[in-house]
Amino acid sequence: MHYLGLDIGGTFVKAGLVDETGRVLESSKAPTVTDDLHAFLSTLTDLIREFQKTNEIDAVGIGVPGLRSSKTHIIETSPNIRCLKHVNLEQLVADQVHIRTVSENDANAAAYAEFVCGAGVGLQHMAHLTLGTGLGSGFVLNGSLFTGASGYGGEFGHTVIQAGIDGGGRLCGCGNHGCLETYVSATGIVMTAEEKMKAFPETILHNIEPPLTSEKIYAAAEHGDKTAQEVFKVTGRYLGIACANLMNLFNLEMIVIGGGVMAAGDLLMYSVMAAAKSNTLAPSFADCRIVQSKLWPDAGLIGAAMLARDR
Amino acid sequence: MHYLGLDIGGTFVKAGLVDETGRVLESSKAPTVTDDLHAFLSTLTDLIREFQKTNEIDAVGIGVPGLRSSKTHIIETSPNIRCLKHVNLEQLVADQVHIRTVSENDANAAAYAEFVCGAGVGLQHMAHLTLGTGLGSGFVLNGSLFTGASGYGGEFGHTVIQAGIDGGGRLCGCGNHGCLETYVSATGIVMTAEEKMKAFPETILHNIEPPLTSEKIYAAAEHGDKTAQEVFKVTGRYLGIACANLMNLFNLEMIVIGGGVMAAGDLLMYSVMAAAKSNTLAPSFADCRIVQSKLWPDAGLIGAAMLARDR
Repeated sequence: MHYLGLDIGGTFVKAGLVDETGRVLESSKAPTVTDDLHAFLSTLTDLIREFQKTNEIDAVGIGVPGLRSSKTHIIETSPNIRCLKHVNLEQLVADQVHIRTVSENDANAAAYAEFVCGAGVGLQHMAHLTLGTGLGSGFVLNGSLFTGASGYGGEFGHTVIQAGIDGGGRLCGCGNHGCLETYVSATGIVMTAEEKMKAFPETILHNIEPPLTSEKIYAAAEHGDKTAQEVFKVTGRYLGIACANLMNLFNLEMIVIGGGVMAAGDLLMYSVMAAAKSNTLAPSFADCRIVQSKLWPDAGLIGAAMLARDR
Repeated sequence: MHYLGLDIGGTFVKAGLVDETGRVLESSKAPTVTDDLHAFLSTLTDLIREFQKTNEIDAVGIGVPGLRSSKTHIIETSPNIRCLKHVNLEQLVADQVHIRTVSENDANAAAYAEFVCGAGVGLQHMAHLTLGTGLGSGFVLNGSLFTGASGYGGEFGHTVIQAGIDGGGRLCGCGNHGCLETYVSATGIVMTAEEKMKAFPETILHNIEPPLTSEKIYAAAEHGDKTAQEVFKVTGRYLGIACANLMNLFNLEMIVIGGGVMAAGDLLMYSVMAAAKSNTLAPSFADCRIVQSKLWPDAGLIGAAMLARDR
C-alpha cells in the first residue's frame, strides 16, 4: 500500500510517496499559491497526478497550516494561505483526483509521524515541537493524536508565556502579545537579537547585512560572538520553560523537537535542559526525555500520509 | 451504595458521605496534622469509623494535595503535608478500616466531580480551576480524567505565564518564578495589591490592619477603592490569559472555575472574559464556555467519592 503525503508550507507544497511503514520512497515539490484557490488546487492535483502516472496511490493525506474542523472538515483559518479559509480542501482534492483524501493541521500531522514511525514509537504521552519561522506543535495523549473538541487543539505556540500586563510581551502575528512563538522560533531569535543589539554596541551582529536572520545570528555565534551566543542561550531558556510548562501540565514521556532552529544544537539545548529541569516539578521531569526529531524535515508529509493510512 | 469522600486540606480534612449520584448526605471535618504520619492517619480513620457507626460504606476516596503516582499509588510530593511524602496512603487507610480505598490528587478529584455530577456533565473536554490559597487544576480530555504518564499531570498552576528572563516573574512556593499560581490565587491577589500599593499612596489598602488578605482587598473594592478594584481587574486579566492558554492548547468545551476567590464575581469575571476572548484563537474561543463551579466547596470530596465509585 502506498500513500501520498502533502505538506503545505508558506513557500512550497512538498509531496512524498510513503509506504505503509512511513518510509518516503519519492518526493517532489511545487511553489505554494496563497491567494487563488483554483490555482492552489491545481498545484495539488498536478503533484498528485504526477505521482499517479507511475504509482498506485491508496489514499492522500494533506497537512494544512491552519485550524481544520474535525466536525465539518472545513479549514476555519489559515493566516498564511488565505485562499484556504472556509474551504473543505480534502473534499475538493478527492473530487478531482478520485482518491480518498484526508487533511489535518500540519503540526498535528508532524506529531503523528513521530508517534507512529519516529522518535515516539510506543509511547502514550508525547509532544512534538517544530521550530521554524513559527512554532508548530502537536500532542499525543493516551496513545492518540489529541486535537480537542473540534480539531483546533494543540496550538502551544499561541499560549502566552510573557503575560506582560504591566509591560508588554512581544507582538505576535496572531495579534496578541507574549505568545511563546514570539520567543521560541526563528522569528523570535531575530527579535531577541535585535533587543540584545541595543544593549551591546560591540557585537558583530551590527555588521550583518540586512535582513537579520537566525542563520546569520547562528553563524556569528559560531564565530565566537558572545552576544549572538547569548541570544541562543536566552532562546533555549524560553524553550526550556515551555517544555517545563508541557511537562507540568501533561506529565509527558517525551518532547520531540524538530525544525531548522535545532541546527544550533548544544548552543541551544544546554540551556533548554537546564531551564526545563529547574522549572518542572521533579517527578514529572524524571518521566520525560527531550529529544531531537527523527523525521524532520519530512515529518509533516509522513504524518499526513500515515493519517491517510489510519483514518 | 454509599461512598466516603475525604478532602485533605492544609488546615482541615473534610469528610462527606456521598450517594451514588454524587449527593453529599452528611459531612464532617477534623484538623489536619501535617508532620506526623501516625497522627495524620488516626485523623482519617477516626473520621471514617465515625461514619461507619451509622452507615455502610462501600468504598473510600481520598483527595490528596500532592503528586500521586498512578503506577505505584505512592504520594511522591506533598509540600504542605510533609508526612505524606513517599507514603501509600490509600493502602495504609484500607489496612486500618478494611474498606476499598482509592486516592487521587485533590484538584484532579475536584475536576472529576464537576465532570460526573457538576457543571461539565456529558462533555468530552473540560478544565476545572480552583482559586484558593493556590491554584488547583484538573482536566477531562476525550471524556476521561487526564493525569498523564504517571498521574502527575494537570499542574497548570505551576506553568510559567511570566517567563521574566530579563526581569523577574514572581517567586512561587515551588521555588520557580512566574508560575500562574503567583498571579491567579488569593496569594496572587495579595501580591498584586502590594505592588499596586507602592504606586498608589492614596488607596485605603494602606489603612488595612495586617495581614493583608484577598477578602480585605475585596471589601475595599466593594467600598469603592479604585486601586483595590484594579487589583481584581488585573487578576482577572491574568486568569483570562490563562483560560486562553488552555483553550488554544486543548480546544475545550468548558472551563469551570471554583474557589473562594470567585466570590468577587463580576469584578473579576468581566476582565476574565475580555482577556480570554482577545487571547484565544477565534474558533477555539467559540467552542468554550467559562462558567462557575456547581460543586465548590465540596467538589474535592465529591470527586474523591465518585472516583471510589468508578475505579
